[in-house]
Amino acid sequence: MGFSLMRNQKFMPTIKHLLIISIAINAGLLLKLLHHEHEWAGLPGPDTNPKNEVRLVKDVLRKAKPATDQFINLDHGDPTMYEVYWKQMGDKTTLVLSGWQSISYFSDTKNHCWFLEPGFANAVTRLHNLVGNAQTRNYHIVVGTGSTQLFQAALYALSPSNAPEPMSIVSAAPFYSSYPLIIDCLKSGLYKWKGDASKFNKDDPYIELVTSPNNPDGSIRQAVVNGSGGILVHDLAYYWPQYTPISFQANHDIMLFTVSKCTGHAGIRIGWALVKDKEVAKKMTKFIEISSIGVSKDSQLRAAKILDVIADTYEHTEKFDKATLFFHYVYNEMAKRWRQLRSAVSKGQTFSLLDFPVEKCNFSGQRFGTQPAFAWLKCEKSIDDCEKFLKKHKILTRSGTHFGSSEKYVRISLISHKEEYDEFIRRLSLLSSMNSPHE
Amino acid sequence: MGFSLMRNQKFMPTIKHLLIISIAINAGLLLKLLHHEHEWAGLPGPDTNPKNEVRLVKDVLRKAKPATDQFINLDHGDPTMYEVYWKQMGDKTTLVLSGWQSISYFSDTKNHCWFLEPGFANAVTRLHNLVGNAQTRNYHIVVGTGSTQLFQAALYALSPSNAPEPMSIVSAAPFYSSYPLIIDCLKSGLYKWKGDASKFNKDDPYIELVTSPNNPDGSIRQAVVNGSGGILVHDLAYYWPQYTPISFQANHDIMLFTVSKCTGHAGIRIGWALVKDKEVAKKMTKFIEISSIGVSKDSQLRAAKILDVIADTYEHTEKFDKATLFFHYVYNEMAKRWRQLRSAVSKGQTFSLLDFPVEKCNFSGQRFGTQPAFAWLKCEKSIDDCEKFLKKHKILTRSGTHFGSSEKYVRISLISHKEEYDEFIRRLSLLSSMNSPHE
Repeated sequence: MGFSLMRNQKFMPTIKHLLIISIAINAGLLLKLLHHEHEWAGLPGPDTNPKNEVRLVKDVLRKAKPATDQFINLDHGDPTMYEVYWKQMGDKTTLVLSGWQSISYFSDTKNHCWFLEPGFANAVTRLHNLVGNAQTRNYHIVVGTGSTQLFQAALYALSPSNAPEPMSIVSAAPFYSSYPLIIDCLKSGLYKWKGDASKFNKDDPYIELVTSPNNPDGSIRQAVVNGSGGILVHDLAYYWPQYTPISFQANHDIMLFTVSKCTGHAGIRIGWALVKDKEVAKKMTKFIEISSIGVSKDSQLRAAKILDVIADTYEHTEKFDKATLFFHYVYNEMAKRWRQLRSAVSKGQTFSLLDFPVEKCNFSGQRFGTQPAFAWLKCEKSIDDCEKFLKKHKILTRSGTHFGSSEKYVRISLISHKEEYDEFIRRLSLLSSMNSPHE
Repeated sequence: MGFSLMRNQKFMPTIKHLLIISIAINAGLLLKLLHHEHEWAGLPGPDTNPKNEVRLVKDVLRKAKPATDQFINLDHGDPTMYEVYWKQMGDKTTLVLSGWQSISYFSDTKNHCWFLEPGFANAVTRLHNLVGNAQTRNYHIVVGTGSTQLFQAALYALSPSNAPEPMSIVSAAPFYSSYPLIIDCLKSGLYKWKGDASKFNKDDPYIELVTSPNNPDGSIRQAVVNGSGGILVHDLAYYWPQYTPISFQANHDIMLFTVSKCTGHAGIRIGWALVKDKEVAKKMTKFIEISSIGVSKDSQLRAAKILDVIADTYEHTEKFDKATLFFHYVYNEMAKRWRQLRSAVSKGQTFSLLDFPVEKCNFSGQRFGTQPAFAWLKCEKSIDDCEKFLKKHKILTRSGTHFGSSEKYVRISLISHKEEYDEFIRRLSLLSSMNSPHE
C-alpha cells in the first residue's frame, strides 16, 4: 500500500535532497572501505582470521596434552615448544609461494654453491651478526638438507679419496647418537667411525667432531685429541642465546648450524655450514650436488623469511611488541623449564643432573648457566637401566648407551609442547620423591 | 599574489557547493574501492597484480633470450620450459605457508614413512590413477629429496649389510651419467658400480637400474641382464604422457618418480618411490631418516598443491580453460620442439637422431612416438667429438662418454626456456646445412 502511494506521488528532488543522498552514499562507501582495510591488515590463508588463529593455538595445545596413562615421547628432540611463539607472531612469517617458483635447479649461478638462495645467505649472515655467535666475514656458506647432510658433506670433503685406509672419525663421549649411524651407514671406504675421541690413538689422521653445547649433555666443548693430523668439524647447532651464553664469536674452520634448533622449524630441513676454506666449501657443494642435486628452494625461502623476522624483532623494534623478541622469549621459556626440572629432581635422591658454570652472554648482557635443549639425567641408587625405569613409568627417553655412555644415563628432550612437558615434570616429581624406587 | 587574494576573499559555501564537494568525495571513495577490488582479485605477493604478472612473464622470456654470441647451456636438464605454463595458471597453485608450519620433524606417525605428508601421498595416488602410468594399489609410498635420494635409499635397502663383496649395480649403456658418480661417491662397501648391464657377468647378485624412457636416449627399456640373482629398480622419471605414450600401467617392484620431470619444479627437490615390499619401503625410509632426518615438509606441501591442480584441470574441467589441461599443453610444446629439431637436423648430413616407434597413449588416446626431454644427437661425417664441435659453436651439451657411450654422441636438454630453445634450433640449422663442417 505504502508502495503504490509512493509511486503515485510526484517526487521532484531538490539540491538539498541530492546532497542528502550523496552524503548517504559517502557514508556507505566509507564503511565498505573500512571493512576492506580491516581484511587487508591480514593475509589470506588458514591463519588470517583472528578467530581461527585462536582456535588453531588451542588446537596445538590440545593436541599436545597427554592423558595421565599415555606414553610421553621425549626420545627425539622434536622442537614443538616453538609452535606457540610462531603462532603468536601471526602472519608476520607467512610466506606466499607462487606456482611458477622453484622451477629451475639453480639459485645463484655466480656462487660456487649454485643451489644457495641469495636471500637465505643474507638472512644467515644478518642473524649471526646480530647474535655475535659466529664470524661470517671471509666464510663461505653452504646450505644443506638439515645439518645432517652438511655433516656428511664435510666428511666427504675432508677425507682424501685415495688414502689406503678410511679416515678415522671421532667425538668425545657422550657423543650425538646419530654420528655412528650416519658415518657407518654405507660402509664407506672414505671414512669410518672410531668412537670416543678421548680414547683415540693420535698417530693416524682423523676428523674430530666437536659439538658445543654438546648433544646429549649440554657441556661446552673443545677438541680433546690434539693430534697433529687432526681436522676439526664444529657442530654448533645449539650455540644460540636461548640455550647458552654467547661468550665468544666462533671462528672455527667448519661450523655447522641448523634451523631446527635455532628457530624450531625442524620440518623445514634446512641447515648451513660456515666454511673458511673455499676448496672445502666447493667439495661440500659437490657432495650435495651428487647426493640430492641441491636443496629445496621452498625451504630456503621459508627459512630466510623466518630468520629475517627474528632479526626484525631486534632491529625494527618499532614494529614489534617487546614480548616478541625471539631469543628473549625462548630463553625465558627454557629458563622456566630448567627451574621446573631442577625442582622436580631435587625432590629426592632418585635422579641427578649436571651443573653448568655461569657466564656472561654478550648478546643479552645476562649471566646464566647453559640451559640445554636436552636433559642428561642420571638415575641414582639401585636403578641401573634408567631408560627402562622411565619407560615403565610411561616416559620414553634415549639410553646413555646410544651416546657411548652408561645405561645409568638418559637423554630427555626438553623442547616439546608445554602440556607434554608439564605432564613429564609431574611424573618425574612423583618418581623423584619416592623413597625407594624399584626398577 | 594569487594566494593572498584568495585568503582575503570571504568564501561562503552554498548547498550547491556542498553537493559538488560531496559528489567529488563519492568519486574518490569509489575509485579507491575499485582499486581495492582490483587488488583483492589476486593474492598478495609479487605476482598478484595483473600488470606485474604480464611483466613477470616477459621477464622470464627476456631473461632466457641469449644473444647470438652467447653460450647456450643445454648440458643440464633444467626444466625451465615449464615456467610459462605455471605463470599462465596465475594464483591457482599459489601456496600460503604460515610461520608456525613445519615445526615438527613428523608428518604422519601412523605411517612407516613418518616424514611423508598425507596430502602429498594423496596427490601422488590421485595423479597416477588419472594418468594410468603406474599402479598404486598395494604399494607403499616413500618420499625423498628428489628421486636421487630415493635411488640411494633403494640401493641401501636392497644390498645385504653383511655380504663379503659389495653388490654390483649395473645399467644398460647409454646410462644416466650420474649413476656412477652417485654410486661410487663414498666408496661404499654395500654396493659398487659395475657399468654397462649388457656386459655384466650373470653369476653374481646384482641390481639393474632400468630407466624408461631412458636418460639420455629416450628409448623404452626393459631389464637386459636376466640373471637369477637380479633385483630391478625402475626409474620412471620420464614415464609421463608429455614425453611418451602411456601404453601400460607399470607395476614393477620399485618405481621412482620425480616432480622435476613431471611438473617441471626441479627446485622443489621432491621425488617419490612406489614400493611393493613393505620391508624394502621401511629400509628405504630408514636410509632417508639417517641421511637427512626426513624430507622438507614445505616442498611436499607445494608438490601436493601442484599435483592436485594438474588433476583438477582434468577432473574439474568446469573450473578451467581447456587450454590449461596440463599434459596436453606440455605434450603440444614437446611435439613442436621435436618437429623443430627434426627439421633442423634434416637440413643436411651433419647430425642424426633416433626414430621412436609410434604407439597409442591410453591416457590421451593419441598415437605418437616418444618425444624425450633430451635429444641424443649423433655427429656424422668427420666430426669425432660432438660435444667439442657444438661447444665451438657456443652450444653446451654433455658428451656421450659420460653415459658409457661414444663421443660421437651428445645429450641435449630440450626443456629449457623457449627463447633459448629457438636460438639453439637456429644455430643447429645453420650447422646442419653446412656442406663440410670442420671440427
